[in-house]
Amino acid sequence: MEPAIGYRIDELARRFGLEVRGDATGMIHGVAPLARAQRGQLAFLANPRYAGELARTAAGVVVLRADHADASPVPALVAPDPYLAYAHIATLFERTPTAQPGVHSTAVVAADATVDPSASVGPGCVVASGASVAAGATLGPHCVIGPGCVVGAQCRLGAHVTLVTRVTLGQRVLVHPGAVLGADGFGIARDADGWVKVPQLGGVRIGDDCEIGANTTIDRGALDDTVLEEDVRLDNQIQIAHNVHIGAHTALAGCAAVAGSAKIGRNCLIGGSAGVLGHLEVADGVTITAMTLVTHSIHAPGVYSSGAPLEENRAWRRNAARMRQLDTLARRVVALEKQLQALTKESH
Amino acid sequence: MEPAIGYRIDELARRFGLEVRGDATGMIHGVAPLARAQRGQLAFLANPRYAGELARTAAGVVVLRADHADASPVPALVAPDPYLAYAHIATLFERTPTAQPGVHSTAVVAADATVDPSASVGPGCVVASGASVAAGATLGPHCVIGPGCVVGAQCRLGAHVTLVTRVTLGQRVLVHPGAVLGADGFGIARDADGWVKVPQLGGVRIGDDCEIGANTTIDRGALDDTVLEEDVRLDNQIQIAHNVHIGAHTALAGCAAVAGSAKIGRNCLIGGSAGVLGHLEVADGVTITAMTLVTHSIHAPGVYSSGAPLEENRAWRRNAARMRQLDTLARRVVALEKQLQALTKESH
Amino acid sequence: MEPAIGYRIDELARRFGLEVRGDATGMIHGVAPLARAQRGQLAFLANPRYAGELARTAAGVVVLRADHADASPVPALVAPDPYLAYAHIATLFERTPTAQPGVHSTAVVAADATVDPSASVGPGCVVASGASVAAGATLGPHCVIGPGCVVGAQCRLGAHVTLVTRVTLGQRVLVHPGAVLGADGFGIARDADGWVKVPQLGGVRIGDDCEIGANTTIDRGALDDTVLEEDVRLDNQIQIAHNVHIGAHTALAGCAAVAGSAKIGRNCLIGGSAGVLGHLEVADGVTITAMTLVTHSIHAPGVYSSGAPLEENRAWRRNAARMRQLDTLARRVVALEKQLQALTKESH
Repeated sequence: MEPAIGYRIDELARRFGLEVRGDATGMIHGVAPLARAQRGQLAFLANPRYAGELARTAAGVVVLRADHADASPVPALVAPDPYLAYAHIATLFERTPTAQPGVHSTAVVAADATVDPSASVGPGCVVASGASVAAGATLGPHCVIGPGCVVGAQCRLGAHVTLVTRVTLGQRVLVHPGAVLGADGFGIARDADGWVKVPQLGGVRIGDDCEIGANTTIDRGALDDTVLEEDVRLDNQIQIAHNVHIGAHTALAGCAAVAGSAKIGRNCLIGGSAGVLGHLEVADGVTITAMTLVTHSIHAPGVYSSGAPLEENRAWRRNAARMRQLDTLARRVVALEKQLQALTKESH
Repeated sequence: MEPAIGYRIDELARRFGLEVRGDATGMIHGVAPLARAQRGQLAFLANPRYAGELARTAAGVVVLRADHADASPVPALVAPDPYLAYAHIATLFERTPTAQPGVHSTAVVAADATVDPSASVGPGCVVASGASVAAGATLGPHCVIGPGCVVGAQCRLGAHVTLVTRVTLGQRVLVHPGAVLGADGFGIARDADGWVKVPQLGGVRIGDDCEIGANTTIDRGALDDTVLEEDVRLDNQIQIAHNVHIGAHTALAGCAAVAGSAKIGRNCLIGGSAGVLGHLEVADGVTITAMTLVTHSIHAPGVYSSGAPLEENRAWRRNAARMRQLDTLARRVVALEKQLQALTKESH
Repeated sequence: MEPAIGYRIDELARRFGLEVRGDATGMIHGVAPLARAQRGQLAFLANPRYAGELARTAAGVVVLRADHADASPVPALVAPDPYLAYAHIATLFERTPTAQPGVHSTAVVAADATVDPSASVGPGCVVASGASVAAGATLGPHCVIGPGCVVGAQCRLGAHVTLVTRVTLGQRVLVHPGAVLGADGFGIARDADGWVKVPQLGGVRIGDDCEIGANTTIDRGALDDTVLEEDVRLDNQIQIAHNVHIGAHTALAGCAAVAGSAKIGRNCLIGGSAGVLGHLEVADGVTITAMTLVTHSIHAPGVYSSGAPLEENRAWRRNAARMRQLDTLARRVVALEKQLQALTKESH
């Protein structure tokens, strides 16, 4: 049922500044993976892991790096970064259903909330007192926009997104279903009788063009705000604690967690299930590999890791038992070195 | 207020093909844990950890392995796998409230969506254009079924479940509250100015009899679909990235995460908080222990682990400091071996 | 738009039993971080990491420990635990919007559910058959209170909270948005053909004054209940499996996970992303550091850790490779010790 959108290969080359190899007259109507793309479809080769699939592809055209071009059995579009070029081209073939402007009849909007007439407020949404939803913004079903929260222009919120309180989204922020922004930071102080809750008086500020994954949580600050600068990209189920500050263009993969008051620089990449302890600083341009725990501040760009390697369980048990004896082992090596030195001296 | 359902012990034995030891005429009206079961209740002993409780049990009957039968002070039902036998028997005593067929008056169903008359659509549900809900399916309150999504026959969705787009559930799929299926995969490509979003054009296909835990997220594919074959069991807060493929009968425990395009085999067990990196393959029949990070493909069935062992913090600090010096330590041992060999040669 | 609440410094000292240093006549109208507090605002210094900011503060008064008092350029309130004192004082300046008592017109309340007239039931809430909501309780938008569930007096539930079935909340329990309590525990038994679901017949009992973070999940028990004693504090995205028991005043940081039937004592602190395996016991007063996996029961109070330390990736790769050879290395050290001993004996 897709309408027949089509672009000639040379037209794509021109539009995205790519070099064509082979016949440039074919029409492209969609995109598909290298292994199952057909004539009329565009595929890409970015990860060398999949280079073997190139020889057998039936794609209409393949976006690839110059060094793969000769191996292509079909026309090619040569790009320095094929994945990036593909990302731009694929947008031509994406069809996001455009939301109807207006407030759905089942939504509940406070009398003193502001909703731009061009915004779309879905079924069951709740927009509280003093909140505002700017031009072109879209709220999926059942979003809850708490008192005083601000949804910027062209933001798109999936279903069941909650902005609790003192949350401000910049422009074009994309929030996936189930995300919770602005819940209380986890601030508790210990009294003789038990825990005393520390009031969380700050907010959350999300910069332009950020993306927030499904079921991700971003707590509001204790006093200052929790801040994501522009173009920060968070995958699903990420936990951002109160007063965290994340620099522009940093991306975090699924299930990563950042503890309170940590400050992460710009252009960082944080791997899946990684953790950053509270009050630390991570410099610009740092990459943290998956499931690494950042236990001290990192002052220089680079790649950082922690963790013990994967092994067959029986071998792992043997080696792990030795990890518990590692300090003793090191001391025994020192003792051996001393004894051997003494013995060597003696014997000469 | 429970009605007096009752089964004689010998009737249970016959129905489930179990052997009775002791008096088989007692009536069983419910199930309870070994430690607090009373006459009229059935208990089970599967984990040897709890064998000590058998001697003191007051249960009406205990399901157990043959080697525990003699130790039972009460009648026993002998089963090769007592937990499995218990699972079957306990179903007799479960009372799931049956949902009323029909669409709740507060639900919002698109004119061109299809809802079978025997399906139950709860309060506040939103069923979008082109979506379908098959016979006997149940949607809890506030479920959102996105455009074109398919809910198979007899599926049961808890409250606040979101199927975003291009999601197909097979038959009898059970989805717990807050799960999000079909949100955008985390596809971003880096441009000079920042991140470019890669359109996520694939879908999610969930096989028959799968179970999806609360607040679990399963992203839709970038080009191909994200796939769970039949009878895959996911616990709560699991993250399945785009284009992942999980084989039949594989089970993942809470908070596990699988990165993009990973392919996990059939009959695997993935422990809690474990991670699988992207583009890897895991063979059929593999067990991954809790909090293990799978960093390379696994080609043979077996049990695999990573991680360093639990210790009292002071000992751990000492040993962990040595882990940073491990390569140096190994080289020092090699040097010692060479020196000792030389010295031995000399002295003979 | 904040009304001008104000307290004189000496009034705060009296009210909270603190000692004043310096001029006690200033008026305090709010709280702010040390670095940007202005005259009229109260700040605190608890973490020595921020002691450097004290000299430059413009706060009206600072809550601090006696040993920092002399360094304060402004009046000080001396407290043995400044963070705790601050927590008490800050409550004076918190303005939680008070929810309107009554049931919102869009809520769906079963005929045989009980809602106290002083409770507030928000837009879109669903209160099922036999459920009850006690005096002064507040349900945010779209909460789902399942059949027979009990919400105690003065509880506050954020948006989209789900209590599935057999869930009982004590008094003053605070549940943040998206939390799911009482979903099926992950009980599956393996049959020849695949998985058999084990009925989850228990419930969830949450003690008075507990706090449950956003998108946290607490499953109901298989037979017995899952239990949190009073004043347990759970951060966001925590997973509590069926039949877990957590003692009073224990706190878990974000993304921690506790597997089935584990029993955690009172006054424990479980770090972020930490895990506790099933059926284990953790004694009272135990601290578990972040991302630690508890693989065996802990019988004595203290601090416990696991994991390998953070390193620059290249160094980490070298050391991690050696972890796989650790048992062999240890055996080589033993061999060296024996050879050296033999050689020493020989040479004397």
